[in-house]
Amino acid sequence: MTQNELIKQLSKKTDSKILFFVLDGLGDLPHPDFNNKTTLEAATHPNLDTLVSKGICGLSEPISPGITPGSGPAHIGLFGYNPIEIQIGRGLLDTLGVDFSFTKNDLAARGNFATVDDNGILTDRRAGRIPTSKNEEICKILSEIKIDGVEIFLKTVKEHRFSVIFRADDLCDDIADTDPQKEGLKPLKAITKNEAANRSADIANEFLQKAYEKMKNLDPANSMLLRGFSKMIDIEHYQEVFKLNPASISVYPMYKGLTKLLGMKGLKTGKTIKDEFDTLIENYDNHDYFFMHIKKTDSYGEDGNFQGKVSIIEEFDKQLKRAMDLNPDVIVITGDHSTPALMSGHSWHPVPTILYSDLCRKDKITYFSEDECLKGGLGRVNSQSLMPLAMANAGKLNKFRA
Amino acid sequence: MTQNELIKQLSKKTDSKILFFVLDGLGDLPHPDFNNKTTLEAATHPNLDTLVSKGICGLSEPISPGITPGSGPAHIGLFGYNPIEIQIGRGLLDTLGVDFSFTKNDLAARGNFATVDDNGILTDRRAGRIPTSKNEEICKILSEIKIDGVEIFLKTVKEHRFSVIFRADDLCDDIADTDPQKEGLKPLKAITKNEAANRSADIANEFLQKAYEKMKNLDPANSMLLRGFSKMIDIEHYQEVFKLNPASISVYPMYKGLTKLLGMKGLKTGKTIKDEFDTLIENYDNHDYFFMHIKKTDSYGEDGNFQGKVSIIEEFDKQLKRAMDLNPDVIVITGDHSTPALMSGHSWHPVPTILYSDLCRKDKITYFSEDECLKGGLGRVNSQSLMPLAMANAGKLNKFRA
Repeated sequence: MTQNELIKQLSKKTDSKILFFVLDGLGDLPHPDFNNKTTLEAATHPNLDTLVSKGICGLSEPISPGITPGSGPAHIGLFGYNPIEIQIGRGLLDTLGVDFSFTKNDLAARGNFATVDDNGILTDRRAGRIPTSKNEEICKILSEIKIDGVEIFLKTVKEHRFSVIFRADDLCDDIADTDPQKEGLKPLKAITKNEAANRSADIANEFLQKAYEKMKNLDPANSMLLRGFSKMIDIEHYQEVFKLNPASISVYPMYKGLTKLLGMKGLKTGKTIKDEFDTLIENYDNHDYFFMHIKKTDSYGEDGNFQGKVSIIEEFDKQLKRAMDLNPDVIVITGDHSTPALMSGHSWHPVPTILYSDLCRKDKITYFSEDECLKGGLGRVNSQSLMPLAMANAGKLNKFRA
Repeated sequence: MTQNELIKQLSKKTDSKILFFVLDGLGDLPHPDFNNKTTLEAATHPNLDTLVSKGICGLSEPISPGITPGSGPAHIGLFGYNPIEIQIGRGLLDTLGVDFSFTKNDLAARGNFATVDDNGILTDRRAGRIPTSKNEEICKILSEIKIDGVEIFLKTVKEHRFSVIFRADDLCDDIADTDPQKEGLKPLKAITKNEAANRSADIANEFLQKAYEKMKNLDPANSMLLRGFSKMIDIEHYQEVFKLNPASISVYPMYKGLTKLLGMKGLKTGKTIKDEFDTLIENYDNHDYFFMHIKKTDSYGEDGNFQGKVSIIEEFDKQLKRAMDLNPDVIVITGDHSTPALMSGHSWHPVPTILYSDLCRKDKITYFSEDECLKGGLGRVNSQSLMPLAMANAGKLNKFRA
């Protein structure tokens, strides 16, 4: 029995409320240019410290020791699902960010508009990063392409990036990228070694031929590359597994899409952390579980911008008070993985985590940092266990057998 | 997907270097005769303390809580493989120590030369621990034995102990020991309840009959007992799983054999810890991963020799400085299991462990002991996670998906 099969047996609907905050890339490393502090140690965060004093803390380990996760699997784990078993293909993940209702018959790929010379040789894999408005124009032209028995959808993502979705029975995503990864080469054909994907590859190639024909006189985006062919995944919704009526608050489109896959209602919000908390407060009465995603801790971490990451933690801390004033039954604050400013990238280090509830068996920790969380009452816990813990603390899990 | 299937997907070749030191049986218990100190606490080890100050420490758990491992599974776990799935039969394990190139068609058993009386009753299961030179003479005589369609190899191990290897197609190791475990009984026949092993058991019995015939006039070794029939296992090499070019340094032959199974190059070394470090330094440029095995911490632990174990830890500490001066990217220091001097045997207690790298998220621990490791930043970690952590810290693992 998987963890979620067990949780599904035990979970029950109650009135209690869970707030689940994910600061993307929250974990950090001591930085020699900043008194050997981590961003969490350099930031002032009185509200996080109040919450850690009232609650329990620890270190959340995404996936397993030593593994540096991408955001997709890292969130799948935080949401309580098995991130190794549940594979979300890159084409799907990117397309989740656009406003599109996937069906099980859909095969998605992420696309780049690109530039080729008269001989069909790639001269720019990103077509000079054309403006998004230009991308929208091209998608409109390409949406005229017809293939027998297949519905085709084109969705602008941003600049040169778009998604294409093929809808038909029995499609298969075992198809190699058409992107040769280097300029000076021709775009590849969509190739598969899997018989079950032959027809899908034929469809992709027919689409590519028709697209090349329609684009040949455009400038600079006169070609395209397709990557990460992926089919819709079949995943049980939060309503079934956890008996929750869940809502998701995120500035970044991908997380709206990802949480929609799990049955969460994506709440319309603005662009700032304050906007996200406004959205939480406005919708507080309508749901019993809220996921809120804070993107910029990760973005600044990726840029190696220590001070930027500090400022986002401080901004989050300021807003957090408003959520605490709602008196939710359970609050979880964690990250999906570490993105140390020192490394300018994701890492494998476990992530500082707070769990607050009246029944959490409070530890002695009063300050929120990587070092203090090491001594916390949650211990080192796999990220996949945070949802069961939140559910238990919210009184939403029945006893396992007699 | 298993851990190593995931690691194999993510691992990449880089120039960084990993030193992986295993002090066999390192973990200990407080000893009432020595101020309630453990051997690690009684020893002086300034270099280990420097390394723990610069690195991160914790407790490595072999297999799973409460399980006392033999050296075979304990090392399989440390090497990053699943020690419950990968079973190395005792016959194979013993034979690994001799210089022999196993093939997948080989069936090995460990043998004892023994003494029987005129009625064939065992009077000494170890034939008075005959000298190794005598053992070699007998092996030479026995190597004249012929069985149709089977190649037979005899290898002296030490004193009364030898290995026999049968090479033929479709052999099977599901055969009971011929050792009745007690004197006053006759040696047993090689028996199997598994049809697939019928022919293999027949081969073993034909060999035994011919051997008894050749040995009947010898004194005192006029019979033999066979135990631990085992076939060669199929295990993916370090080159494939970790993309490493690994070398192994060990005084004790079994570890040479065991690491050879994993694709490691066994480096020729002497008999002392200093010799082992000499070998490391001489070969440092030629490999990106070195396993070094220190045997005597375990031997003295098994003997209940507290001071002996202390002296080996101190000798290792002295030599360790030379390895630190090489400036490797990652150093791991651990044991395969605990061998408390107080217990004179292996135990289930988790093992003090250091991981050093520039990116290890250093903890506050400055002294290397069981107690201090309990508070370390590595936490309690299954021994199987140490290789993925070493790989991550060496920058040898790609990100897991997007």
